[in-house]
Amino acid sequence: MKSTAELYEQYSEHMKRIADMRYAAAVLQWDQETYMPAKGAERRAWQLATLSETAHEMATDAKFEQLVEELIQRDNPHRARHVNVALTHEDLQRQKKLSGAFVRKLSEAVSRAFNSWIAARKANNFGLFEKDLEQLVALKRESAELYGYEGHPYNALIYEYERSVTVDKLDSTFQTIIPALTPLVQQASKATLNADFLHRFYPKEKQWEWGMWLVKELGFDLEAGRQDISEHPFTTNFSAKDVRITTRIDEQDFANMTWSCIHEAGHALYEQGLPDSEYGLPSGEYASLSIHESQSRLWENCVGRSQAFWNHYLPVLKSYFPEQLQEVDVTAFYKGINKVQPSFIRTEADEITYHFHVYIRYQVEKELIAGTLAVKDIPARWNELYQQHLGIKVPDDRTGCLQDVHWSHGSFGYFPTYSMGSFYAAQFWTKAQKDIPALQQPDMDANALAELLAWLRKHIHASGRLLDSEALCKAVTGEPLNVNYFIHYAREKFTGI
Amino acid sequence: MKSTAELYEQYSEHMKRIADMRYAAAVLQWDQETYMPAKGAERRAWQLATLSETAHEMATDAKFEQLVEELIQRDNPHRARHVNVALTHEDLQRQKKLSGAFVRKLSEAVSRAFNSWIAARKANNFGLFEKDLEQLVALKRESAELYGYEGHPYNALIYEYERSVTVDKLDSTFQTIIPALTPLVQQASKATLNADFLHRFYPKEKQWEWGMWLVKELGFDLEAGRQDISEHPFTTNFSAKDVRITTRIDEQDFANMTWSCIHEAGHALYEQGLPDSEYGLPSGEYASLSIHESQSRLWENCVGRSQAFWNHYLPVLKSYFPEQLQEVDVTAFYKGINKVQPSFIRTEADEITYHFHVYIRYQVEKELIAGTLAVKDIPARWNELYQQHLGIKVPDDRTGCLQDVHWSHGSFGYFPTYSMGSFYAAQFWTKAQKDIPALQQPDMDANALAELLAWLRKHIHASGRLLDSEALCKAVTGEPLNVNYFIHYAREKFTGI
Repeated sequence: MKSTAELYEQYSEHMKRIADMRYAAAVLQWDQETYMPAKGAERRAWQLATLSETAHEMATDAKFEQLVEELIQRDNPHRARHVNVALTHEDLQRQKKLSGAFVRKLSEAVSRAFNSWIAARKANNFGLFEKDLEQLVALKRESAELYGYEGHPYNALIYEYERSVTVDKLDSTFQTIIPALTPLVQQASKATLNADFLHRFYPKEKQWEWGMWLVKELGFDLEAGRQDISEHPFTTNFSAKDVRITTRIDEQDFANMTWSCIHEAGHALYEQGLPDSEYGLPSGEYASLSIHESQSRLWENCVGRSQAFWNHYLPVLKSYFPEQLQEVDVTAFYKGINKVQPSFIRTEADEITYHFHVYIRYQVEKELIAGTLAVKDIPARWNELYQQHLGIKVPDDRTGCLQDVHWSHGSFGYFPTYSMGSFYAAQFWTKAQKDIPALQQPDMDANALAELLAWLRKHIHASGRLLDSEALCKAVTGEPLNVNYFIHYAREKFTGI
Repeated sequence: MKSTAELYEQYSEHMKRIADMRYAAAVLQWDQETYMPAKGAERRAWQLATLSETAHEMATDAKFEQLVEELIQRDNPHRARHVNVALTHEDLQRQKKLSGAFVRKLSEAVSRAFNSWIAARKANNFGLFEKDLEQLVALKRESAELYGYEGHPYNALIYEYERSVTVDKLDSTFQTIIPALTPLVQQASKATLNADFLHRFYPKEKQWEWGMWLVKELGFDLEAGRQDISEHPFTTNFSAKDVRITTRIDEQDFANMTWSCIHEAGHALYEQGLPDSEYGLPSGEYASLSIHESQSRLWENCVGRSQAFWNHYLPVLKSYFPEQLQEVDVTAFYKGINKVQPSFIRTEADEITYHFHVYIRYQVEKELIAGTLAVKDIPARWNELYQQHLGIKVPDDRTGCLQDVHWSHGSFGYFPTYSMGSFYAAQFWTKAQKDIPALQQPDMDANALAELLAWLRKHIHASGRLLDSEALCKAVTGEPLNVNYFIHYAREKFTGI
């Protein structure tokens, strides 16, 4: 009989190969969104489908399943290893519910939808995206049935991204959050903050230089990653030592690139902080998408939209854009970048109205997956919800339901993790500020940033997926997720602005 | 019983998936040589190994072999399909001789060697490359034994790139060529041609713009491909609609980038001209590496180093570099770019001494694979051969045996196809000039280039791998490869310079 150590070694070898296949697909996707020439799209879709199908077959291979079953019976004295096997077992049971052919079909549908989303967005015409999105929604609804669920079918899909929540929990969270944030939005509508300086002309090359400097300053290791330009900013990785972020540049909107850089760098710092020695294993993976998002939102907002950060970094920024920011002092800058105002684009929204954007998408997704909303009716429903929750009239599809890439990726259930991430971020941030004296200073310099990163690495990144979101939150802060931290953070910050 | 058409469909589906896997590996390799951050190397090596092993397993799958066996028994009335199956059968029998584990080991060794080659070249120190190259040579020698061969073990390796030649044939070809070219080198040593204008300062950005303009002018479709920067210029592709070329820029050497662009564009035009509908099948693949090289060398030399081309394009080039080329007229330019002179770097060599470079590598490779030369003795042997054949003293490893990427890829047997390609090119070019009136004019304009491309597409690209090098050469020119075309071309051209 083989020893547990031997079996674990075998298990771990196979897991690495599955990871190789998945990361290879991620390279092809990264290339697709950054450098691939237009005509390459069709064959690329096949290639991605073959990689997805192969990875799925490897992950659900019968012999591998036996191995995992045998390992799980044994009492592995090495705690982390035991958790790895248990999580793999859970994943395997779930993945088995989809066939390789279904995974292939889904992958092909995603590629088609992604390409038609690009075209639809360019043409500002939802109609060009509709048919492919319909197929994708149908497949996602089918996958919910295949996975199985209790309550709402959307629960089967959120599970992919965040295992600790359900529709019930999300509904009740938003029922707390939206009323708590509404007065802050109302109050802001009475203030007259000037953010015009964000819309002066900021040349592309200078923005790029600044963005590269900034992500490096935050701690992003450019020998273990890179930044490029894409249609929609994202982070991906092919190991903890090859993490790619992308951004986009708008010469008329300085905010667009800067906070997208900080946001994606936040994701990237998490990936670079995961234990590389655990490549391919749950212990080397991120905990959940909410936790991933907590990292990006913490850096983007708690750090990157704080007065302390700009007390230190505004002079640097001014060295890149001396003319554009000549007369702007740090108070005006801080207030300007934190102007709360209903707007159309989620990624450019302030920290308060952001959650209305997420809530709207969450509504639309739930209805799509329940089958009570038809794909063709998305634009109308979207616009109606923007009117209802943010009081604004969406002018066109590009500014409306075509703005985000997620649906073209088939990522239904992903958006709620953006809000959850912000809530976790506020709770982590509160604790970090208590733990780290450098964060209590009025000036957040490179040393403070490094101490924060070290704290995140130690308390959050190091455990990979060994702790789930709730367990991690308890371990870090002493209690499970409590949205009052976010509400408190938001009131403190925005009442003063 | 399934119909032949049904079986062929099944075969063709499986072939597409193998291609998907191989092209995915090619994307990862392209990324590795263009954009991958340094620390990504180690995991990338695993990923490539897993893709190679999986592709190998798919290509040698027992059920697939049965299918191919059954198809080959049947008399497929569709000629091209019959050839596809026959070639696949041949490939499969050959590939079966290597195990998946061996393919994985080889792939890992290649990644290691590639990374240490980069480091060794940077440090100008062959010693840093030696150990990994030793392992790779050992594996290639082992693979020659596994494949089996008649005569020299090197024959087993050339076969990978060019099935129509053997060591005997190559030896006798070089025995004809080297003595025929020697007088041209001697004669050139007496001439005093001025090529100093090539070594003025040519700014990077301007060279890049010019290179992009140039490849487009030659017919490279930038919606179905792209150009990037890499350590060593190369062409790769992930379908006929996604063909990537790379180049490198030396601000002190104008020739470096320009003819590398034309060379790689020649490869790329071939790949873009292969029938995309035959994706994954031999009928959609290049005929052989010699034929591939015939395309790059034809464009680089017969076109790109001709007087007619520069009669038309020198004014365009001068618009990019008015100061650097101010006083250079077309005769001086033409003579300068065709200066025959023993030199150290193969990719920058003139059309005559080029074959001495190849011949030297061929000698070294034969000896390595025969086991009569040890890896550690490569630099000494290399330098000795350069002294013997070109009468020059190699100053260091970077300018010597570390200059080419090929050995780090394990591509032993590849170099001879460079010379073979030039010989095929001369023969094709002679025919093309007869067939195309526009090529008989003193001015080779965009129309002439387009007619040449159309001719190549029709006569060479369209048949994919359905005809092998020799059959293709006969079909195009009426006779098998005859090196006298090249000798005649060289004498005609260089006696006049």
